[in-house]
Amino acid sequence: MEALKQKIREEGIVLSDQVLKVDAFLNHQIDPRLMQQIGHEFARRFAGQGISKIVTIEASGIAPAVMAGLELGVPVIFARKYQSLTLKDDLLTSKVFSFTKQTESTIAISAKHLGAADHVLLIDDFLANGHAARALIDLIGQAGASIAGVGVVIEKSFQSGRVDLDARGYRVESLARIGSLAGGTVSFLE
Amino acid sequence: MEALKQKIREEGIVLSDQVLKVDAFLNHQIDPRLMQQIGHEFARRFAGQGISKIVTIEASGIAPAVMAGLELGVPVIFARKYQSLTLKDDLLTSKVFSFTKQTESTIAISAKHLGAADHVLLIDDFLANGHAARALIDLIGQAGASIAGVGVVIEKSFQSGRVDLDARGYRVESLARIGSLAGGTVSFLE
Repeated sequence: MEALKQKIREEGIVLSDQVLKVDAFLNHQIDPRLMQQIGHEFARRFAGQGISKIVTIEASGIAPAVMAGLELGVPVIFARKYQSLTLKDDLLTSKVFSFTKQTESTIAISAKHLGAADHVLLIDDFLANGHAARALIDLIGQAGASIAGVGVVIEKSFQSGRVDLDARGYRVESLARIGSLAGGTVSFLE
Repeated sequence: MEALKQKIREEGIVLSDQVLKVDAFLNHQIDPRLMQQIGHEFARRFAGQGISKIVTIEASGIAPAVMAGLELGVPVIFARKYQSLTLKDDLLTSKVFSFTKQTESTIAISAKHLGAADHVLLIDDFLANGHAARALIDLIGQAGASIAGVGVVIEKSFQSGRVDLDARGYRVESLARIGSLAGGTVSFLE
């Protein structure tokens, strides 16, 4: 998606060979017009798949997921970090290991909002080592729902998440695929 | 805003005289079409005010704020819970007391994205005792920015937040004002 790649080139900051900072437009400050374009692109790629619900994770997945939900005409559920929940009953939970923080946390979805009749598009801002995606897939599976695919805004293709999801047979659509951050430069795949 | 009130009547769950659960469409599952209508209504109410930026707080403020930002054509910043931040430099921070959880937490905004030239619309999903709004106002003030007003999706008018913001001279626009949750029933003001 060219508009996204251009934004990454212009406003992304390479902090290391592993870390790209995009807090100017995606995960702290948000560019709503770009999010609308991203939602439109996800909707285009997953059109006609019978998607009934989008699942994402707080907080940075929410903006692209809601824009995709608007285009596809389906509700969005964001998995919550367990400690932010006031009501603990009827919850499906899964563990997420954060590579950045080297800690494990629990995320949760209310079983009330997701069931066996649902066909889910999973959306997240980043795909790196795939820990968050695997936890969301686990939650969706616990609910008995099926998965149409995984929509990712920015994929760090040099980390293991993409290969892992491909190997498990999931359809992954990443709007920007980064092959390398070496030398402080963003190199896209394709 | 009638569509919102109707949604609250149909899908809101009164948990106690103080607590209204709206996780079916606002703060766990999100109705993107309703969020678009909410964004449209905030934009209508604050049109022509010279707003340059919207500030909200993760996670439930993001969807309505991004839709309002799309309509007004301005970026959205969401204040982050401090522990979720990987980069700690250049941050403005403030403390928020959570009445529900009876704990104090720290929220933060990068000083890079907000400055003295900004005229800010603050948006949040709920206004109850006003703790989150006061912390966001504090952050915006630290950045040297001015405040155009406060947009609230659901105001619990029987708690102290609205009165407090009125007394401080802020313009508050709440799309649904709840006068009482007594007897398990949602009673709207006006």
